Amino acid sequence: MDLATIVGVLLAFGAIIGSMIMEGGNPAAIIQPPALLLIFVGTTCASMASTTIPSMLGSFKWLIFAMTAKPPDMNAVIEPLVKMAEKARREGLLALESEMESITDPFMKKGLQMAVDGTDPDDLWEILTAEVKSKKAAATNGASFFNDAGGYAPTIGIIGTVLGLVHVLENLSDPGKLGHLIAAAFIATLWGILSANVMFLPFGKRIKLVGMAEASRMELIIEGVLAIQAGANPRVVATKLKSKMVPTGPAAPAEEAA
Amino acid sequence: MDLATIVGVLLAFGAIIGSMIMEGGNPAAIIQPPALLLIFVGTTCASMASTTIPSMLGSFKWLIFAMTAKPPDMNAVIEPLVKMAEKARREGLLALESEMESITDPFMKKGLQMAVDGTDPDDLWEILTAEVKSKKAAATNGASFFNDAGGYAPTIGIIGTVLGLVHVLENLSDPGKLGHLIAAAFIATLWGILSANVMFLPFGKRIKLVGMAEASRMELIIEGVLAIQAGANPRVVATKLKSKMVPTGPAAPAEEAA
Amino acid sequence: MDLATIVGVLLAFGAIIGSMIMEGGNPAAIIQPPALLLIFVGTTCASMASTTIPSMLGSFKWLIFAMTAKPPDMNAVIEPLVKMAEKARREGLLALESEMESITDPFMKKGLQMAVDGTDPDDLWEILTAEVKSKKAAATNGASFFNDAGGYAPTIGIIGTVLGLVHVLENLSDPGKLGHLIAAAFIATLWGILSANVMFLPFGKRIKLVGMAEASRMELIIEGVLAIQAGANPRVVATKLKSKMVPTGPAAPAEEAA
Amino acid sequence: MDLATIVGVLLAFGAIIGSMIMEGGNPAAIIQPPALLLIFVGTTCASMASTTIPSMLGSFKWLIFAMTAKPPDMNAVIEPLVKMAEKARREGLLALESEMESITDPFMKKGLQMAVDGTDPDDLWEILTAEVKSKKAAATNGASFFNDAGGYAPTIGIIGTVLGLVHVLENLSDPGKLGHLIAAAFIATLWGILSANVMFLPFGKRIKLVGMAEASRMELIIEGVLAIQAGANPRVVATKLKSKMVPTGPAAPAEEAA
Amino acid sequence: MDLATIVGVLLAFGAIIGSMIMEGGNPAAIIQPPALLLIFVGTTCASMASTTIPSMLGSFKWLIFAMTAKPPDMNAVIEPLVKMAEKARREGLLALESEMESITDPFMKKGLQMAVDGTDPDDLWEILTAEVKSKKAAATNGASFFNDAGGYAPTIGIIGTVLGLVHVLENLSDPGKLGHLIAAAFIATLWGILSANVMFLPFGKRIKLVGMAEASRMELIIEGVLAIQAGANPRVVATKLKSKMVPTGPAAPAEEAA
Repeated sequence: MDLATIVGVLLAFGAIIGSMIMEGGNPAAIIQPPALLLIFVGTTCASMASTTIPSMLGSFKWLIFAMTAKPPDMNAVIEPLVKMAEKARREGLLALESEMESITDPFMKKGLQMAVDGTDPDDLWEILTAEVKSKKAAATNGASFFNDAGGYAPTIGIIGTVLGLVHVLENLSDPGKLGHLIAAAFIATLWGILSANVMFLPFGKRIKLVGMAEASRMELIIEGVLAIQAGANPRVVATKLKSKMVPTGPAAPAEEAA
Repeated sequence: MDLATIVGVLLAFGAIIGSMIMEGGNPAAIIQPPALLLIFVGTTCASMASTTIPSMLGSFKWLIFAMTAKPPDMNAVIEPLVKMAEKARREGLLALESEMESITDPFMKKGLQMAVDGTDPDDLWEILTAEVKSKKAAATNGASFFNDAGGYAPTIGIIGTVLGLVHVLENLSDPGKLGHLIAAAFIATLWGILSANVMFLPFGKRIKLVGMAEASRMELIIEGVLAIQAGANPRVVATKLKSKMVPTGPAAPAEEAA
Repeated sequence: MDLATIVGVLLAFGAIIGSMIMEGGNPAAIIQPPALLLIFVGTTCASMASTTIPSMLGSFKWLIFAMTAKPPDMNAVIEPLVKMAEKARREGLLALESEMESITDPFMKKGLQMAVDGTDPDDLWEILTAEVKSKKAAATNGASFFNDAGGYAPTIGIIGTVLGLVHVLENLSDPGKLGHLIAAAFIATLWGILSANVMFLPFGKRIKLVGMAEASRMELIIEGVLAIQAGANPRVVATKLKSKMVPTGPAAPAEEAA
Repeated sequence: MDLATIVGVLLAFGAIIGSMIMEGGNPAAIIQPPALLLIFVGTTCASMASTTIPSMLGSFKWLIFAMTAKPPDMNAVIEPLVKMAEKARREGLLALESEMESITDPFMKKGLQMAVDGTDPDDLWEILTAEVKSKKAAATNGASFFNDAGGYAPTIGIIGTVLGLVHVLENLSDPGKLGHLIAAAFIATLWGILSANVMFLPFGKRIKLVGMAEASRMELIIEGVLAIQAGANPRVVATKLKSKMVPTGPAAPAEEAA
Repeated sequence: MDLATIVGVLLAFGAIIGSMIMEGGNPAAIIQPPALLLIFVGTTCASMASTTIPSMLGSFKWLIFAMTAKPPDMNAVIEPLVKMAEKARREGLLALESEMESITDPFMKKGLQMAVDGTDPDDLWEILTAEVKSKKAAATNGASFFNDAGGYAPTIGIIGTVLGLVHVLENLSDPGKLGHLIAAAFIATLWGILSANVMFLPFGKRIKLVGMAEASRMELIIEGVLAIQAGANPRVVATKLKSKMVPTGPAAPAEEAA
């Protein structure tokens, strides 16, 4: 479980509250029920109107998955595949049947099982690749609810501020309350921007990132399963799989190894 | 019929009205005929000027379709195709003729009829694929009127506000009415943002979503029809079709099944 | 001639004037020569600086064409092609020579003439396809002048407003004229947004739409000419051509016919 | 040399100055050294920080080239290629050696020389095509410095205005000077928008346009050289090359010729 | 080490401070701890929430690499490859073994070593190309943290300003301090825009640029290694490699050489 999203959101709220306290303000001033209702209900509804109900529910499932899932460990994929390749080369493809129990990754299990069952390599490639494509499409769909919300929230915040200012402008008779009313009007803009930049947009980006990492892991597995089925040299399989790993920093594996 | 769009739009308006009432304002304050005329007629006309008349009328047909159509049930497509594949394998392609009555999906019917009629597989693929491409293009065109409107509305709202402020600034002699006039000027911005974010942009996104789901369903059917024509193994057909279904959540069918 | 653009622009201006009158303002207030000079000359010059002179003149020709041209009637393309396919199948490709007079579409004429002249099918495909690609590129270029203008105009409007406000701020000694001067300053923003959203952006979108419709018509013709040259079955030619037509609404031809 | 950019920039400045004079302002008011320093040095430095030094210098070379270069005359490319094709067909490829002196275009010369030298057609295609790809990449890189500047300038203008307003707000004791100080603060926004929309963005677009036109010319030459090497019919070569020319207006060559 | 980014950022800050001094302001006025806390911690946290922890750490490694790395010298790649091609042609592929020590580029070394070891050309191409793709993906990921920050910072600046204004509006009783408080509120917007345009966005662009240049260098090496393995003519290898170099200015190598 990678805590970047949860920690990031909490620390960002902390920075906002901290900066308010440093300026001598009262953080409770931003808790305005009408603004919160407008921004969170209004934004969610605008996003909901942009999609269908199953698709919206899927987005919430993706959010939970993206926040709690362990990022895929590519090395944990390569190692068992190379071991399988060695066994298949030595003892034949059918010998993998006995190893099937030890594989915990369901996609790798499915692929190897199909290989052991004698599925045609073209069919195998087509079926597994279609699942990768579906995974990518699902991640894009899953992120779109939050991307949409990140686009709607700031403008719905402006709606709240305009509504507040209209209310102020039609009640100019009591100048003593003006400052407080105008302040309240701006809280809607605040929450619109805040929810978009500290919650909705990061959520959408995280879902996309986690989904694409999943798809990369699946592509690595396909590569490995097809090589095992073709009886490739385990050393070449390892080199090929490593060359397809995307490093997180500027140094590619080739350069580190050199 | 998926109610997300209709319910979403109504609830968003509800949130706006609710937040106004909570702040002690009068929701009727935003009903300003000059602003409504400017935003809705002006935006529609700017979008109309960006397209042609048949294309504009098509967009309205798409809107009705996207709001009322049942989202395609992919399982409802896979099941009859697998049944057809079994029958075709057992009794030959011509035996499907007698089943044709039971198929309600016009695209599946057309594809199977062409297969039964002995159309060349390449021609069959080309004709059905061209219809999918046309469907995608039609959905993109259908959404573009509302996407355009969603882009124009906020700026036309600003036009209304500037016009209102100009009117205010040239009538500064009656300070008592200033607040009310400035408030009225901002209502145009309000409706510009509101119509874009709660109506036009969600409409465009929903049309695109529904059209693309339709196209996915059609692609699934093509895959199935071609497999039936080629006399493929029904079990493989079912696996292939399932691998091409896009799940709504993070769990791919492969992982659920595992 | 599809009137959407002309009617749309006129009605949008009507909505603006109507909303001004409803608010009790004087529509003549927005006729400010300095603002009009700045927006229309400044925007045109910024767009001109972004391109070359032949390309700019081409954009104006495209605008006239896009506003006045009849949108291509796809059925009017399919019918003569199917008739030609029948004749070519019955009497041979050379028999089309006598029909050449009756064809009014210059692109169809060119394609059929090349087919009758015995041009190699690969060359024929390459030459006609290159013209479609050129047409698409020409439409994109033609639209870019107005797309650029639509991007520049609002910001040039802000330049006008800032210039006006600077002028106001340096002449604060006469408070009685302030309101009028500030109003005048905002008129530049008004025209910047107005020209972009009611004129330039719709013009660019219309040119792109009309150009792409032209290209689709040409692609349909290529498909037909190649099928005629190959001596294809006229019924299959008709089905193929119809499957490539993009419907304006959600119902694809296949579904309507079913 | 196409004057659109130089004339466009000068006329746009003229429109700004003209509109200031019509409003009774003094154009010299916008010459504020602190604002000019901030916008032009700050923007250039932000763009420089986004790239490398050789890449930045290349962008300035591209700007000079894009402003002064004659737009490529496609007909001037087709004519000599067709003449060469005729000569090569009549007298053989080696006969072109004697014509090499008369060719002024270095890319055409290089291509024909390689053809005469007996370079393998696949190698010839690969080498010439790689240069077109490099030219496109170079134009995109060359434009990116000015595109970046066009993105940074308006926001750096806002930095200047905020700095100016902060200065004003901390010196509220002398109300008589407020107007002048606020006016000065807005000049930074003015120059930020002005430099982006009348200079940087048009420069970037012009570089891209000129670079892509160069690349199109080179693609036409490759097509011609390969056809000459293959001994193609000069009439077919001419037709093919003409079909690849992008017209500036809506009428394609085919339609004009018809 | 290309100093464009470091010098650019420092000079941009210099221009801001210089313009403040020219206007008679005190540059220290922009050092406001609450604003700095909000912008830098808030923006970093929002970007962190959009990604995972390893990916964020990778972005910082990329930043250091992109600022300090020497831009790849393409000529320094071509020269040794051509020398290797000559040696391989004269003395056979195995003769390169003795030269391996002199190669400092780890990617070139890896490629040549695999060629000498007799790796199948298709495997060699696949493995090396996968590393280029991984490098491009890594650079895009590395830049995304700063691109995200560049998008979040200005809006988090607005959050700070709104918070400050709310604080002001609720403390209107002491008019003497208003100017100073409003000024302080705007400093948050200042830092939001400043950090995005002078730091985060340039950092992201620089990382992308440097990563893509690295990838181009690697593609050049692949081209060369494959040609050496295939025993190609060293002169043709040199011409091919030069044609793939992207020039920084408008003149392509072909034109310079002519």
